[in-house]
Amino acid sequence: MSDVKKVVLAYSGGLDTSVILKWLQDTYQCEVVTFTADLGQGEELEPARQKALKFGIKPENIYIDDLREEFVRDFVFPMFRANTVYEGEYLLGTSIARPLIAKRLIDIARETGADTISHGATGKGNDQVRFELGAYALMPEVKVIAPWREWDLLSREKLMAYAEANGIEVDMKHKNGGAPYSMDANLLHISYEGRHLENPSAEAEESMWRWTVSPEQAPDAPEYLDVEFEKGDIVALNGVRLSPAQVLTQLNQLGGKHGIGRLDLVENRYVGMKSRGCYETPGGTIILKAHRAIESITLDREVAHLKDDLMPRYASMIYNGYWWAPERKVLQTLIDETQKTVNGWVRLKLYKGNVIVVSRDSKTNSLFDMNIATFDDDGGAYNQVDAGGFIKLNALRMRIAGRLNK
Amino acid sequence: MSDVKKVVLAYSGGLDTSVILKWLQDTYQCEVVTFTADLGQGEELEPARQKALKFGIKPENIYIDDLREEFVRDFVFPMFRANTVYEGEYLLGTSIARPLIAKRLIDIARETGADTISHGATGKGNDQVRFELGAYALMPEVKVIAPWREWDLLSREKLMAYAEANGIEVDMKHKNGGAPYSMDANLLHISYEGRHLENPSAEAEESMWRWTVSPEQAPDAPEYLDVEFEKGDIVALNGVRLSPAQVLTQLNQLGGKHGIGRLDLVENRYVGMKSRGCYETPGGTIILKAHRAIESITLDREVAHLKDDLMPRYASMIYNGYWWAPERKVLQTLIDETQKTVNGWVRLKLYKGNVIVVSRDSKTNSLFDMNIATFDDDGGAYNQVDAGGFIKLNALRMRIAGRLNK
Amino acid sequence: MSDVKKVVLAYSGGLDTSVILKWLQDTYQCEVVTFTADLGQGEELEPARQKALKFGIKPENIYIDDLREEFVRDFVFPMFRANTVYEGEYLLGTSIARPLIAKRLIDIARETGADTISHGATGKGNDQVRFELGAYALMPEVKVIAPWREWDLLSREKLMAYAEANGIEVDMKHKNGGAPYSMDANLLHISYEGRHLENPSAEAEESMWRWTVSPEQAPDAPEYLDVEFEKGDIVALNGVRLSPAQVLTQLNQLGGKHGIGRLDLVENRYVGMKSRGCYETPGGTIILKAHRAIESITLDREVAHLKDDLMPRYASMIYNGYWWAPERKVLQTLIDETQKTVNGWVRLKLYKGNVIVVSRDSKTNSLFDMNIATFDDDGGAYNQVDAGGFIKLNALRMRIAGRLNK
Amino acid sequence: MSDVKKVVLAYSGGLDTSVILKWLQDTYQCEVVTFTADLGQGEELEPARQKALKFGIKPENIYIDDLREEFVRDFVFPMFRANTVYEGEYLLGTSIARPLIAKRLIDIARETGADTISHGATGKGNDQVRFELGAYALMPEVKVIAPWREWDLLSREKLMAYAEANGIEVDMKHKNGGAPYSMDANLLHISYEGRHLENPSAEAEESMWRWTVSPEQAPDAPEYLDVEFEKGDIVALNGVRLSPAQVLTQLNQLGGKHGIGRLDLVENRYVGMKSRGCYETPGGTIILKAHRAIESITLDREVAHLKDDLMPRYASMIYNGYWWAPERKVLQTLIDETQKTVNGWVRLKLYKGNVIVVSRDSKTNSLFDMNIATFDDDGGAYNQVDAGGFIKLNALRMRIAGRLNK
Repeated sequence: MSDVKKVVLAYSGGLDTSVILKWLQDTYQCEVVTFTADLGQGEELEPARQKALKFGIKPENIYIDDLREEFVRDFVFPMFRANTVYEGEYLLGTSIARPLIAKRLIDIARETGADTISHGATGKGNDQVRFELGAYALMPEVKVIAPWREWDLLSREKLMAYAEANGIEVDMKHKNGGAPYSMDANLLHISYEGRHLENPSAEAEESMWRWTVSPEQAPDAPEYLDVEFEKGDIVALNGVRLSPAQVLTQLNQLGGKHGIGRLDLVENRYVGMKSRGCYETPGGTIILKAHRAIESITLDREVAHLKDDLMPRYASMIYNGYWWAPERKVLQTLIDETQKTVNGWVRLKLYKGNVIVVSRDSKTNSLFDMNIATFDDDGGAYNQVDAGGFIKLNALRMRIAGRLNK
Repeated sequence: MSDVKKVVLAYSGGLDTSVILKWLQDTYQCEVVTFTADLGQGEELEPARQKALKFGIKPENIYIDDLREEFVRDFVFPMFRANTVYEGEYLLGTSIARPLIAKRLIDIARETGADTISHGATGKGNDQVRFELGAYALMPEVKVIAPWREWDLLSREKLMAYAEANGIEVDMKHKNGGAPYSMDANLLHISYEGRHLENPSAEAEESMWRWTVSPEQAPDAPEYLDVEFEKGDIVALNGVRLSPAQVLTQLNQLGGKHGIGRLDLVENRYVGMKSRGCYETPGGTIILKAHRAIESITLDREVAHLKDDLMPRYASMIYNGYWWAPERKVLQTLIDETQKTVNGWVRLKLYKGNVIVVSRDSKTNSLFDMNIATFDDDGGAYNQVDAGGFIKLNALRMRIAGRLNK
Repeated sequence: MSDVKKVVLAYSGGLDTSVILKWLQDTYQCEVVTFTADLGQGEELEPARQKALKFGIKPENIYIDDLREEFVRDFVFPMFRANTVYEGEYLLGTSIARPLIAKRLIDIARETGADTISHGATGKGNDQVRFELGAYALMPEVKVIAPWREWDLLSREKLMAYAEANGIEVDMKHKNGGAPYSMDANLLHISYEGRHLENPSAEAEESMWRWTVSPEQAPDAPEYLDVEFEKGDIVALNGVRLSPAQVLTQLNQLGGKHGIGRLDLVENRYVGMKSRGCYETPGGTIILKAHRAIESITLDREVAHLKDDLMPRYASMIYNGYWWAPERKVLQTLIDETQKTVNGWVRLKLYKGNVIVVSRDSKTNSLFDMNIATFDDDGGAYNQVDAGGFIKLNALRMRIAGRLNK
Repeated sequence: MSDVKKVVLAYSGGLDTSVILKWLQDTYQCEVVTFTADLGQGEELEPARQKALKFGIKPENIYIDDLREEFVRDFVFPMFRANTVYEGEYLLGTSIARPLIAKRLIDIARETGADTISHGATGKGNDQVRFELGAYALMPEVKVIAPWREWDLLSREKLMAYAEANGIEVDMKHKNGGAPYSMDANLLHISYEGRHLENPSAEAEESMWRWTVSPEQAPDAPEYLDVEFEKGDIVALNGVRLSPAQVLTQLNQLGGKHGIGRLDLVENRYVGMKSRGCYETPGGTIILKAHRAIESITLDREVAHLKDDLMPRYASMIYNGYWWAPERKVLQTLIDETQKTVNGWVRLKLYKGNVIVVSRDSKTNSLFDMNIATFDDDGGAYNQVDAGGFIKLNALRMRIAGRLNK
C-alpha cells in the first residue's frame, strides 16, 4: 500500500468523506488533496475548507470550485439535446454530474502531481463506476482508492466509532441515526434512496421531498412561461437572456413552486441489481418537455426518429458512466449536429405538477407548413393523388406476399 | 370505372360518408355494403342503419359491429405491452384503431363477395395509408376507392351542395360551418385537428376538450387506484376483475375526472408534412405509466433495454399503418414473449392531471431483491470487492487508448 | 405541359436518352440542356456532344463533365468509411453514383436557369427515386420529367420505331435485339439486370461478366498488396500515393485481374419488389475488406459496434436515395468523426477471387496492446483476478432471476 | 476453501485440465466429477476416461458425452438463422460451443449433487465469461473455481513442474515447448491464437492451418453443391437428407477440400483488449452464404432489415457469453419466427476459397415475382405512374425544408 504518494479525494466535508480523509492518511501514509465542488447542491462549501485544514491538509491542497456554469453548459444541456431519459423515466440527475467530478479530480491530480484519486461511493452503486471509468479514461495510469470496497467500516456504528476515536465531529443528525435517506443533490436534481424506500411497495413519505411542494400544495393558479432555444439549448426565460446555470436555477424555482418533477421509480443499476429511487428534477422536467416541443417544429422527421432510436443507448452510456468514452463522444457529435436548426420558442403552462405545452414557433427554422397541413384548400401545394401511388408502392411487398399465401 | 362490382364502405352515418355512399352509387353504379363499427367513440350506431336503408342499401348489406372488446384486447393492449409512444408524446389513439377497421372491411368483403373497399379519409392524412396498407396486406387483389383523392368535392361548399342536391340530410352543425375541428374518437382517445389548431403557435381553446376536465377543474382530492397486471395486460382495477374494454372504459372515466391525458403536439405524418394535433387519452395515459412501473420490477434489465431500443420503431410501424405487415408481427412475438413475467400490481395516485406511481409489487415475479439492494449490511449477498474488477475490465479499452494518446 | 421552359437531361448519348431528348423537344416544346458525366463508366463522351448538336442543342447547353475524382472522394470513400453493405451483400455501386448526378443536374439547372430536370430511369427501379429525391432536396421547386412514367413508348419496338421516324441512329446492337442485360457502370462497379437474370434460379452466363476474369481464369500466383489509410480513406497502394480516383482505378485493375468482386444476388428494391442483379465491384470489394482490417486495430470496440449497428440503416439511406437527406448527413458526421484514428496499413493477398488479409498495423493509432493480449506472463499489465468480479456483476441480474424461478 | 464439496470439471484429458484435476483434489479436498464432451473437435475421448480413473475419479463420476447433434441443432443452426457474424468477420465458432458446455456442467452438477463447477479457461479470455455466465444463469447458487485466476502456476514451466511432481504424463509435444498456438476446435471451427500471432502485423504461417487446404492447393475444378433449407436450417445436401451434425460434417469436408473458410482477424474481447485470431470455419462459411441467399427470395424486405439491424447485437450477446440470458432468448423467438417461410434451395459453386451463389428458388415461399420484376411489359401488374406519387410524398419533408433554406 506504500505505493500511493498523493491522493485527490472528492471531499464533501460531511461525516463519511471526513472519515475517509483520515483513513487515507492513516492507511496509506500519503498526502491528501481535497476537492470540493459547488454543483448547485445548495450547501456551504467553506466548512469543508475548515475541516480539511483541521486534518492537516495544506492550504494549497484544498480545492473548492464553483462548477455550476460548466456543469449546466457542458453536461446538462448537451444531455437534454438528446431528450435523454433512462428507462423511460429517470432524468439522470446524479449520473450526469459524476463525469464532471471525475474530470476535476484528474485535472487536480495533474496539477498537484497526485497519482491516486479516492471517492466515497459505495461498492454497490453506480457512482463508483462513473467516477472510476471517467478517471481511467482521462488518466489511464491513475490509481483509485474506493474505501467502501476496502475497509472494514461497513456498518454505521463502526464508522461513527472510528470518527469519534479520531476526533471527527459527528453532528446530531448522525448521532440520532443519520439521515433517513441516502441523498445526492446538484443543480439538476436531488435524489433519495435507502431505508424504507428499499421496499418498493411502500409509498414515499411526503416529508421526504425537499425541493418541490406537492402538487396538492402548489398554487391554485397556473403560470405561463416562455422558453427560448438556440441550437437546442435554453438561452432565455420570459424574454430575459440568462446563462446556463441561471436558466436551470430559475427553472428549479418555478418547477419547485408548482410541484413539478417528482419521480418515484425502480431502476436497473449497471452493477446488476434493481434499486428504488425517488427524485426531484423540477427544472429538468421543464427542459425535457420544452425541448421536445421546439424540436417538433424544427427537426426533420427522420432526423428526429434517428435521435429517438439512439436515445436509450445514449442514456445508458451516461447512466453507466461512459461519458468520457469514445462512443459517447462520437454520438454527441451527431446529436449536436442535429441541433443547429433547433431555434425558436415554446410557451408552457405550469400548474400543480403539470408542464403543459400550449404553443411553439420558430421564426427561422419552422418546418411546419400551414399551406400544406391545412384541411382547407391548399391551392395545389400538395397533390392528394400522389398518396395513391405512395400507398400502392409501400403495399407492393405485402401484396406479393399475400398472393403467395392464398 | 365499370370494373367495381361491390364495395364495402366504412360508414359512420355522418355527412361525409353519406355523401360518399351516394357518390359511389352514382359514380360506380355498384352495390354498396356499409360497415359501421362501435369502437367506443360514444355515438349511436342505429341512425347509421336507418340512413343506409334510405340510400337503398339492402338490410343484409348493412354491418353494424360492436368491436370494443376486440379493439382493446387485440390492438390497444398489445400496443401498450411495448410502452409505445410515437415521437416521445403521442399515444397512437387513432393509429391503432385503423388496422381493426381495415380487417373488418376485408372480412366483410370476403363474406359479401365484394371486390372493393372505400373510406372517407383524406389524401393528406395518415389514415388513408393505414386503411389501405391493411386492406392490401389482408386481400392483395382488393380494389380501393378513396373518394377524397378522386372527386371534385374538395371544398365544404361543394360537398354540401352535393348533399342537398341528393337529398342527404345536413344538420345544423354543418350548415353553420361544421365542427370547428376534425375529430376522431374511439375507446382509447379523441383527437382534434384543423382550423385554428393549424397555427402551432396558437393555444388550444379550453372549450375544445371533450373527454377530460382541465386539471384546474379536476377534484381537489387525489384518488388512489390499484391496477393489477397479468402478462403485461391490466386485468383488474381496485381488486375488481374486468374485461379489456371495461378496464379502458373505467380508466377513461377516472382519467377524465382527474384531468389526465391531454396532449397538444406537432407530429410528423407519414405522408411527409408536420401536423398539429390535440389529444385526450385519459385511460391510455394511466396504462402507460402503470405498465412501465410493473415492468420496472418484473423485467430483466437487458430485456427492458432491448424493448426500449425497439419501441420507437414499433411505434412508427403502427403510426405508419403497418400493423398487418410481417415486420410488426414478428416484432410482436418478441414483445409478447417478454410479457410472460409481467405480473403484479401498481398503486397510482390520480390528481389534477398527474398519474403518480406510489408503489408496486409482484408476488410471483419481482426481481427486486431487498437483500442485495440494501444500504445496510447484506450478509454477503453481494461482494463489493467484485465491483473493482468489474470497473477495471470495463475501463480497459479506454485505458489502452488513453496511453496511446499521451 | 407548356409550363416547362428549360430542362436539363441526364444524357448518355445512347439510344434511350437520345429518344428522350427528341421526345422532350417535341412534347414540351422546351429548350433542352444535356448533361453527360464521366463517372468512370469507360465510354467515350465526345460522341454525346456530337449527337446533342445534331438535335439542335446549343453548344453552351451541352455539359460534359469528368466527375471521377469528386465521385470517389465525396461519395465512394465516405460510404466505405461505414463498411457499407446493403442486405449483407450489395456494395451499392449504382446507388452511390446517383446523388452526384442529381447534384450536377441541379447545379446546371441553376447555372442555365432551367426549371426542370429529366432522366432515363424506368418507373420500376430505384434510380428514379434516387435522382428525384436528390433533385427535390437540392431544389425544392424543380419540376421532374420521367419519360418512362409518362410516354407510350414502353416496348422496345415502339422505341425503335420512334427513333427511326425521328432520324435517331440505331446501332447494330439494338437492331439485333439490344444488349442482353440492363447495365450500369461507373468507377465503383458494373451491374447487370434483366433478361434471363429475371429467373433467380438460372445461373448467370460466364460471358456476361465484363470487368473481371472468372476466378478460374485468374492467375495461378497470388499477388500481395499494401494499402495505406488516412482517416479511413486509402491514400496509397504499395507505397505510392494516389488520388482517390487513381486508387479505385488501380484497385479495379488488380481486382479484375484476380477475379475479385463478382456478386449474384436478389435484392429488395425500395419501390417494393425483389430484383435479381449481378455486379462486379473489384476495387470496392478490396476496399471493404481492407477497411475493416484497419479499423480492427484502430477503432475502439464500442465505437466499432455503434457503427456496425447503424450501418444497415445508413446503407438503406443510400440505397433508397436519401444521400441528400438530413438524416444521412447527420449520420455521416458521426461516421466521419470515428475515422480520425483510422490510420495505418493493411497487407492483402489477392488470389482467384479471394481478398485475404494477412497483416495490419498502425504506427500512430494501434489499440492492439501486445503486453496485455499475450498468453505469456504480462508482468502485471492485466490482473486476471479482476475477471472474477467482472463476471460476478454481469451475472448478478441472471442469478437473482434464477433464484426466483426455483 | 473447505466449503466446496463436489466439483464438476470440464475435462479434456489434456495436460492443463489434468493438472487442474489434481490441483482441485489437493487444494479443495473435494470429490471431482469429470465431464468430457465430443463437440466434433476430432479427438479420442476414451483416453480422458482412463486418465480420470488414474486420478481416482469414481467411474460413475466420469461423464463422456457425444453432443454433436445437440450442438448443431440447438446452437449452431439457431445462430445461423440470424446470419450471425461478430464484428463483420468472425463466425463465433468458439463462442457458440461454450453455452452447451455450461449447460451440461450444470446438468451434471444437478445429477451428481455437486455444488461447484470448474474449467480451464484463462483469466484474460472470453471463455471464462461464457462458461460462468451460463452456469450462474442456469444455477444461481453454483460456485465456480477458475484455477487460472487463483493458482500460482501461471507459467508453462511451473505447470509442467507441478505435472511431473504429481505424476501427470507430459507428452513430447509439451516437453518441446508445447503447441505453437492456443487452439480450440469443435464441429463449427478450429481457432488459433497466441505466440507469433500476437503480432498482428505478422502473417500466419501456412503450416498453422489444419482443417482446410490453402486456396492455392485446392482442386482446380469447381464443385457444385445443392443446399436445401427448411425453416432456415439446412436439411439436405445434393438431395440427400441429413441430420444437423451430418450436414455440418459434410460441409466441413467440402469446404476444407476447396480452401474455404479461413479467417485472420483482430477482434475485441469482452474483457477489454484486442486479440488476434485465426479461424477455419469451412462449413459455417458455406451455411452463411447459402442462408443469406435463401432468405433473399423468401423473406420480406422489412423483416430482413429488422433482422440485419438486430444481428450485431445478437452476435455480441453470443460472443459475450449471454446465450442463456433472457435478452438472447426473447430475441431468438423473433429470429425463429422469421424463419417459418425460409424454405427452398440454393445452388453453390465451391472453388478455391470461394463460395459462389449461382441460383436459388423456393417452390413454396418465393416472394420473387417475375411478372413485376421484369423489364419487359408486365401486363399492368405494376403501374409505373404510382412511382411518381411515391417519390413526391417521400420528398415532401425535404422540399419543405429546402424552401426554408432559401
